[in-house]
Amino acid sequence: MPGIMLGDMFPDFKADTTIGQIRFHEFLGDSWGILFSHPRDYTPVCTTELGRAVKLAEEFKKRNVRMIALSIDSVPDHLGWSKDINSYNSDEPTETLPFPIIADPKRDLAVKLGMLDPDEKDNDGMPVTARCVFIIGPDKKMKLSILYPATTGRNFDEILRVVDSLQLTAKHSVATPVDWKPGDKVMVTPNVPEEEASKIFTCGVTTKELPSGKKYLRYTAQPK
Amino acid sequence: MPGIMLGDMFPDFKADTTIGQIRFHEFLGDSWGILFSHPRDYTPVCTTELGRAVKLAEEFKKRNVRMIALSIDSVPDHLGWSKDINSYNSDEPTETLPFPIIADPKRDLAVKLGMLDPDEKDNDGMPVTARCVFIIGPDKKMKLSILYPATTGRNFDEILRVVDSLQLTAKHSVATPVDWKPGDKVMVTPNVPEEEASKIFTCGVTTKELPSGKKYLRYTAQPK
Repeated sequence: MPGIMLGDMFPDFKADTTIGQIRFHEFLGDSWGILFSHPRDYTPVCTTELGRAVKLAEEFKKRNVRMIALSIDSVPDHLGWSKDINSYNSDEPTETLPFPIIADPKRDLAVKLGMLDPDEKDNDGMPVTARCVFIIGPDKKMKLSILYPATTGRNFDEILRVVDSLQLTAKHSVATPVDWKPGDKVMVTPNVPEEEASKIFTCGVTTKELPSGKKYLRYTAQPK
Repeated sequence: MPGIMLGDMFPDFKADTTIGQIRFHEFLGDSWGILFSHPRDYTPVCTTELGRAVKLAEEFKKRNVRMIALSIDSVPDHLGWSKDINSYNSDEPTETLPFPIIADPKRDLAVKLGMLDPDEKDNDGMPVTARCVFIIGPDKKMKLSILYPATTGRNFDEILRVVDSLQLTAKHSVATPVDWKPGDKVMVTPNVPEEEASKIFTCGVTTKELPSGKKYLRYTAQPK
């Protein structure tokens, strides 16, 4: 089965979307990107997910992340369903969302990108798209992915949290510990020698003593 | 590149671990399973992650989920590092954790299961394991996966949340909406006809009116 791994160049493709035909890499430009698929238009969990994505569009924009959704439905269905999404959000029920949705009715992209959920079938017995999230860096490489089944709605706070971590750690020699949230302390990465750490991280570095005597558990304040 | 998709039978394999050699499917038995990889022993983020996993072991056990970790380090390194993990948790610094760690020094499993992070290299210039999570059902099929890079520690609350969703939705004709937490309302799945929904969900079903006039946004209380 196909699958895009961390560090792989994310495939470029042409697609029909709610804003017309696009080429994916051109659409992304120099930005970060998030491509997220949902099983079907006019279904319950997907509506709650896209509703939340609409509400968070400003947060993604602030972080220079271009959003694009995908399912196996047609452009007219996407546009009709967008009215429901806006209405669910108690907004004016227009056909416009702050991001495009790709129409992949022949499942060409879903197969190519490994996005199908074989446990969920449509009325014709064909598998539908899973709840995938691909986060793509400005270098067009895959940085992170999640793959949830149709039954399990995603957690958009977690998606924003990992975008913050990816962007912070792309810029500074730090990594974010388990359950990290923006503003929490971060870890100095192992490739920074002890004598350099205190020069780079002028707020100070705290090293935890461990039975091994190794000095790898180094905390510092989140760099600005 | 390899990759295990939703619904794929999770490969069986033999592996050396901190509790001796195991066969993976035999280790899982009839339980759910979580296989999670980390880049290296004796590194900062991994220590915070495995420390948190240790603290949550009882929660996974309650849910009948067998836990197993994996990295490209040796069994002696795993055992020595376990002392550091226990010490980080302010526990007695023994070599015992509540779950085994697989030793995959030749990267056989990491390659087979698509777990490598090509952006992170060890001192010999070889790629190390990424932060993968695979959740496997009692039928040995892949239910959900996340794939984070070395820089970004996972969110174990999110992992428990999706286990709760997977187990609930495997048992009842419901799906969990975006950002759902245990106890929140759930959605009636589209395959349940309107006339049956009120019989199955005796606490009542609320249907949201939408511009399309379609009656798919149906909420009910979380089934017990």
